[in-house]
Amino acid sequence: MVSIKDVARRAGVSPQTVSNSLNNPAIVKPATRRLVIEAIEQLGYTPNASARRLRTQRSNTIAIGIAPVSYSRIYDRLLHALVTEADAHDIRVILYKTDSKQEELRQFEALTRGGDVDSFVLTDTEHGDPRLPWLIEHHQAFVLFGRPWGVADMYDPLVPWVDVDGRQGIADMTRHLILHGRKHIGFIGWPGLSGTGADRRSGWQRTLLDARMARPDELDSLCAYGEDRIGAGQAACVALLEQRPDVDAIVCVSDTLATGAIMALPRECDIVVTGFDNTASAQSLEFPTVDQPLTESARQIVRIIREQLDARAAGGATAGRDAAAGAGAGNSGAGGSGAGGEGDGDQLHVLLKPTIVVG
Amino acid sequence: MVSIKDVARRAGVSPQTVSNSLNNPAIVKPATRRLVIEAIEQLGYTPNASARRLRTQRSNTIAIGIAPVSYSRIYDRLLHALVTEADAHDIRVILYKTDSKQEELRQFEALTRGGDVDSFVLTDTEHGDPRLPWLIEHHQAFVLFGRPWGVADMYDPLVPWVDVDGRQGIADMTRHLILHGRKHIGFIGWPGLSGTGADRRSGWQRTLLDARMARPDELDSLCAYGEDRIGAGQAACVALLEQRPDVDAIVCVSDTLATGAIMALPRECDIVVTGFDNTASAQSLEFPTVDQPLTESARQIVRIIREQLDARAAGGATAGRDAAAGAGAGNSGAGGSGAGGEGDGDQLHVLLKPTIVVG
Repeated sequence: MVSIKDVARRAGVSPQTVSNSLNNPAIVKPATRRLVIEAIEQLGYTPNASARRLRTQRSNTIAIGIAPVSYSRIYDRLLHALVTEADAHDIRVILYKTDSKQEELRQFEALTRGGDVDSFVLTDTEHGDPRLPWLIEHHQAFVLFGRPWGVADMYDPLVPWVDVDGRQGIADMTRHLILHGRKHIGFIGWPGLSGTGADRRSGWQRTLLDARMARPDELDSLCAYGEDRIGAGQAACVALLEQRPDVDAIVCVSDTLATGAIMALPRECDIVVTGFDNTASAQSLEFPTVDQPLTESARQIVRIIREQLDARAAGGATAGRDAAAGAGAGNSGAGGSGAGGEGDGDQLHVLLKPTIVVG
Repeated sequence: MVSIKDVARRAGVSPQTVSNSLNNPAIVKPATRRLVIEAIEQLGYTPNASARRLRTQRSNTIAIGIAPVSYSRIYDRLLHALVTEADAHDIRVILYKTDSKQEELRQFEALTRGGDVDSFVLTDTEHGDPRLPWLIEHHQAFVLFGRPWGVADMYDPLVPWVDVDGRQGIADMTRHLILHGRKHIGFIGWPGLSGTGADRRSGWQRTLLDARMARPDELDSLCAYGEDRIGAGQAACVALLEQRPDVDAIVCVSDTLATGAIMALPRECDIVVTGFDNTASAQSLEFPTVDQPLTESARQIVRIIREQLDARAAGGATAGRDAAAGAGAGNSGAGGSGAGGEGDGDQLHVLLKPTIVVG
């Protein structure tokens, strides 16, 4: 690697003059500076990244966890979008392992103590997530991809997030089915009261009730549940069709469950199955699905992180969030405003609209 | 973040003394050193990672590319295994985007000029891969996950690799089917002459011929091909069964194609379909598959990288590879020795055995 001394020798100046030319150019004579710049270009010198970080006290690095089993089929697409967007702003992305939430806290500790990481991107948020209090207490910048389900205030400026409005995506898909003549629309979801799953189910339920396509007392008979596996989708589809042989469309909470449901359909039947995530399976089997705007999600995540870093550089670790929160109030560049009328979105809490893909 | 000055103040010594206590303890009086250590522990001080890197001229960082569409269903499992193994050796993993091989060269340039990265892990190797000459020419350490298909010398010490023996996995699966009474075993592969796909197909072909379960002139009629999508697996299965209605087992080059093949099977038929990669689809649909030892792959990749770094620290960028090559000759700790009798494997070229998963 070319060093500052090599540049100095080539330019015929001292290493201090090279350093000044880069960091404090006003004090170097223009003719000298030109010599230095020429030498830099000839030698292909780049200031050492570690030296630059030490000088700026900023690692220009963000970290995102990776789980032993992806929590989502879109994890690698999200990673690619995040790396692409970060790269455009000269920010590095490092990966750390998250075998459990407790282990993730140890990773936070190691990465922040070494000054390795400026901000964290958290995925797979859950009720009572222990990561949020830890990061807030340690004045460590972060952004969630996903909402902090279960907290009292979803719009806490200390907990910035970017998410995709799954309820709206499922509602749009259900509307599409109604408007194309489907009369008995079932739903296959995930078991339990998970934030994301319950949110998506509510999009189906509300749309059916609004359109008077189902009575409140028959909603349960139109639902079946399974873990996010193809086999579970098959079983849920069989159960649903036993409960309700009249079903002519099935809205699934994920492409994985939709793939299973399609495999369990009777041959030659006229039942439309829809998914969520626009995975290779949906494209390949050509079933309707919901596409998450991952590029825009990554863009918003990196924007928030850059504002955190800029604000921190302007003074204090927590001042960053406060400043960004102040600047963002009432101004939603990209927040989704769902048909449900939530009117969500400030600069620190961005709810993006998904798109239905109906072939 | 706690600084060296904070430690000095707490210990009642100069910052230089703190620095000496850490980097050159022999010149500091034991009593003074104890004060410094106590202050470090009380304050939770960690030497700044950037400072440490600058001092050691080693970033302890490896980089791996991420493509817009994963080249493999196991990419995220490989990433997790790599991060886990690197973490155990205090090595960071950073991600960079690889939208094309040409772009990857630009990424190499940016990451190596800043001294950000010690070694690269390359996936998705292909014939005439432009990345290898670039990295070799720039004396930049790297390890392939996958073999450098198409090169003259697969065991070039300048091109270290770790791979899983796909041919053996497919051969083992084919043997298993023969030994369980299957008489007409078809194959669904990827189109083209890709290294990995052709290697796996040869495992099926050789096993059938050795067992005299097919004549050489009927091999073509037992094969069908498709891109790695479920829909293509369906189409290939339909085509194969038209060509050869007698087929009673189908060995597929991937779980994705196997999933499609299963969907295209006539109901109630007795045809076994097998896959490759042990994905969630194989587990969920309970078809036999081949499991790649990704944890061991990551362990071998990180071992080679650590030897590269150690050797480089001992002198010279290329000396590292030479030293490791010398040390490794004739000593294969983990190289697979396939039943085909290849006897592959030295310390820089590790071919691991996969495992068949037959439920």
